[in-house]
Amino acid sequence: MTDPLPSWNNGAAKTAILDFVARVTKERGPDFVPAAERIATFDNDGTLWCEQPMQVQLFFALARLNALAEQDPTIRERQPFKAFFERDLKAIHDMGKQASFEVAFATHAGITDEAFAAIAKDFFDTARHPTFNRPFNTLTYRPQVELLAFLRANDFKTYIVSGGGVDLMRAFAEEAYGIPPEQVIGSSVKTRFDAQGDAIALMKLAELNSFDDRELKVQNIGLHVGRRPILAFGNSDGDLAMLRYTKAGQGARLALLIHHDDAAREVAYDRDFKLSPLVEALDKAKDYGITLVSMKNDWKTVFEPTG
Amino acid sequence: MTDPLPSWNNGAAKTAILDFVARVTKERGPDFVPAAERIATFDNDGTLWCEQPMQVQLFFALARLNALAEQDPTIRERQPFKAFFERDLKAIHDMGKQASFEVAFATHAGITDEAFAAIAKDFFDTARHPTFNRPFNTLTYRPQVELLAFLRANDFKTYIVSGGGVDLMRAFAEEAYGIPPEQVIGSSVKTRFDAQGDAIALMKLAELNSFDDRELKVQNIGLHVGRRPILAFGNSDGDLAMLRYTKAGQGARLALLIHHDDAAREVAYDRDFKLSPLVEALDKAKDYGITLVSMKNDWKTVFEPTG
Repeated sequence: MTDPLPSWNNGAAKTAILDFVARVTKERGPDFVPAAERIATFDNDGTLWCEQPMQVQLFFALARLNALAEQDPTIRERQPFKAFFERDLKAIHDMGKQASFEVAFATHAGITDEAFAAIAKDFFDTARHPTFNRPFNTLTYRPQVELLAFLRANDFKTYIVSGGGVDLMRAFAEEAYGIPPEQVIGSSVKTRFDAQGDAIALMKLAELNSFDDRELKVQNIGLHVGRRPILAFGNSDGDLAMLRYTKAGQGARLALLIHHDDAAREVAYDRDFKLSPLVEALDKAKDYGITLVSMKNDWKTVFEPTG
Repeated sequence: MTDPLPSWNNGAAKTAILDFVARVTKERGPDFVPAAERIATFDNDGTLWCEQPMQVQLFFALARLNALAEQDPTIRERQPFKAFFERDLKAIHDMGKQASFEVAFATHAGITDEAFAAIAKDFFDTARHPTFNRPFNTLTYRPQVELLAFLRANDFKTYIVSGGGVDLMRAFAEEAYGIPPEQVIGSSVKTRFDAQGDAIALMKLAELNSFDDRELKVQNIGLHVGRRPILAFGNSDGDLAMLRYTKAGQGARLALLIHHDDAAREVAYDRDFKLSPLVEALDKAKDYGITLVSMKNDWKTVFEPTG
């Protein structure tokens, strides 16, 4: 038999995944789950692709800010934008994740949904990650792309549930992960129905609609999916509510947490790391029955190879 | 060849549907649309099932109110609930659709999402429509159930986009229409992440999250689906924004409006009917390129036969 997860090393995490999928798909078995109920939710930043040293969302905001500064150079000197222009990671981190993302989302105001998709596509086609020196949409984790495909081959419906802006993720998720736009849940801004004669579109506004993090991830799963996932995968405290909600369902459930412990190939952080996104979830994983995945030990390869 | 729409009479509406599906599925044809982009959105109340003399949502609210009155009989005498207990259709209609639905949603507060599903199932199993004297979930329109199946057979993804409460629709849409919960978009209330030891659930609150009507239907399609539909079907002014948004996309598009003109088999109303839900959309249909469907002339059968 061909190994469906060749980029995963043999070990407890890989065994837990293979065993879980075998159990829920075994007809007339005690843990069988009908195909329609096989919902799997994945965080994106730090779970499906790289989020260090800064979220891709924020690099994209910087590209937008550079475009906006061509119209109005004064924004280079105005906070909170100044911190982005100066790539002042400390100042950006100190804002907190939600506030820094709200700055990013504000740079999308006044753009229609379809114009935004074109801008995002251009970003992925041209911009490069400053340290890995490759296009941002190639910073996806190969073991996770394999896992998503393996789950879908077993009739799971795979979702992204992420704090990232929903439109930015939708611009690359289908090609990168095989996840269509309607299975991407993320942070969102309010929109306005914009009718100019026969041209009708949704106009993005600066005002936040939902910051899809922590408990809101669960609330948004309720709103968008209407079924409790049977498998969830995250990497940070922001995913803990989703992992717990998943585990609390009746029947077989699997919750996974990737631990970034691989300074050589990507990044290493844990509870002692300043501004670590992973403190409580790492401490509580065992109590909550969450399966830990070590990037260093469980993943044979980290990134997708580039062409 | 077998007729895929046997409950539709031959005529302009049926021809428009068959022609549209043939064009968008013809590979290498000028109007071909890739399967992933074949999004079809349907209003529910009055489009997929009966909404007269009162929305099913409101009959369900009455059942909930009766259950609540067992705990607290005083609500029978308090407005706005009194109007429901007295089945005072005029008073309920005079509230306006959103306000009457908000009363309905308030009766669901303090119930978890999964407990709600059980209550809704019980309602469909036991309650009967007062004039048609059959279970509410059998008041679906047979021609529309055929159309949904025909679209899916042609690789469309079929969605409900309705002002109805999303949870109530999810409780019957999969069985009645073949539409899974994650493809149901509706009005929603805010929820709270509720953790009681190992029991974790979403608790419904009284506060409205989104009343999915008019322009908000389009905004919610943007939020949930992230692609513009290529086909949309409605029955009222509340659907006009969705129909226009659909038609305004590039390439082949079909927007349909069912006109309830069949007093003998269901109900007849138009712009002169008091509190008619269909005034502007009927007047503007031709200008906007919307295809009118006459219940009386285009549908051979109205309701699903009962077993």
